[in-house]
Amino acid sequence: MTDSPVGDPAATSPASPSQPPVDPSEDPFADPAYRDAVVDLLGAIAYGEISAFERLAEDSKLAPTLEDKVALASMAAGQLEQVAGIRRRLEELGVDAFEAMAPFRRPIDDFHRHTAPADWYEGLVKAYVGDGLAHDFYREIAAFLDDDTRDLVIATLGDAGEADFVVGRVRAAFEVEPRLAGRLALWGRRLMGEALTQAQRVAAERDALAGLLAGGRPGLDLVAVGQMLSRMTERHAARMNQLGLAH
Amino acid sequence: MTDSPVGDPAATSPASPSQPPVDPSEDPFADPAYRDAVVDLLGAIAYGEISAFERLAEDSKLAPTLEDKVALASMAAGQLEQVAGIRRRLEELGVDAFEAMAPFRRPIDDFHRHTAPADWYEGLVKAYVGDGLAHDFYREIAAFLDDDTRDLVIATLGDAGEADFVVGRVRAAFEVEPRLAGRLALWGRRLMGEALTQAQRVAAERDALAGLLAGGRPGLDLVAVGQMLSRMTERHAARMNQLGLAH
Repeated sequence: MTDSPVGDPAATSPASPSQPPVDPSEDPFADPAYRDAVVDLLGAIAYGEISAFERLAEDSKLAPTLEDKVALASMAAGQLEQVAGIRRRLEELGVDAFEAMAPFRRPIDDFHRHTAPADWYEGLVKAYVGDGLAHDFYREIAAFLDDDTRDLVIATLGDAGEADFVVGRVRAAFEVEPRLAGRLALWGRRLMGEALTQAQRVAAERDALAGLLAGGRPGLDLVAVGQMLSRMTERHAARMNQLGLAH
Repeated sequence: MTDSPVGDPAATSPASPSQPPVDPSEDPFADPAYRDAVVDLLGAIAYGEISAFERLAEDSKLAPTLEDKVALASMAAGQLEQVAGIRRRLEELGVDAFEAMAPFRRPIDDFHRHTAPADWYEGLVKAYVGDGLAHDFYREIAAFLDDDTRDLVIATLGDAGEADFVVGRVRAAFEVEPRLAGRLALWGRRLMGEALTQAQRVAAERDALAGLLAGGRPGLDLVAVGQMLSRMTERHAARMNQLGLAH
């Protein structure tokens, strides 16, 4: 991130040039709805990362070997790396970072409570699917953000080496235990279903954030949100294929 | 760390110039006892870090606020950062990193099993005391290492900002609950006692490592090890004072 608390005035949205949600001629944070949406977004990402750290650290206990444990623990540690930058930005915006996270604790905690892995492989698939959904969400929302915020959000994306680790481990397990595939396919659907449930709860409760997701239009645009969820579902299916799982 | 698998031939030990354990005229790794000791040391440090990650992540659940949780979780994540470098070095030495860690799993796991914190403050004191003991140990052993290994070991030291966080939180708690000081003073003694117990077990079982700790002399020099433990006990007492605790 940069030290500037406001967006680059030259910012334009590459995704919707005909209807830029961020007016390039003025400070986007002058719009209270935009500012509220960014505060919500950063609060949600920060708590999501803290929570992902906790869950991955917990799930790493299920690892069959010390090497596997270190791999998942490293994914956990990576989740925390960006929290400090997000906290600084929220403070620059005059917001207490932990207050900004508060509205997202219940939906994110509920997601994890409802998707506690029963074994190592469920933990691996959850790490992969969860990280993938976060990637997709950031990619969707990046188009509607000022440059500085977009840079901060993009910096929170994990690295692809971790995905390769998970895909390799899961595919190798099927060769030893073919019946695992059916169970993990169901598990992937449950993860996606629970993520959608909690995302819809957030969209219903957080008007500003939902408005941003709907292309910067005020209020909740159900059609636009529905289209976004449809794209995210397609990408989830592609990831399940990558794991060798039906979806 | 550097990419060189062997020590800098110009290395000298600043702590004992009259009796350099690493002969500056040759590759220190040509001595099998030195090589074994370094493999043991790196294995012990790596497993110590992995284990510290797990325990700090677990203990962060006890945090009274989300901000406190993030602080301890960040300390946990920091522990894992250096493991990759140590693994690379062990592989350069032709050793499987996880095999090198194996002899240290039982003593380190036992240490943590015997010192599971009962509450947030015991967890904080353990994080501070444990990190302090690791610092002291690295400082003691650094004098007997070739340059490259020393750099790698020193890189695993945590940063002082974390210590300030712990000291501030513990001292503030005494103002609210003065009786906490007595309990935490006992806890600090128990942590040190358990660390000594496990360190002595390691010294008895790992001749090469014990020899290195005794100043590079072959076999176990009980006097030298005793002097080192005495210095570490003094520094532990200073840290307890820093926390406002009797020792």
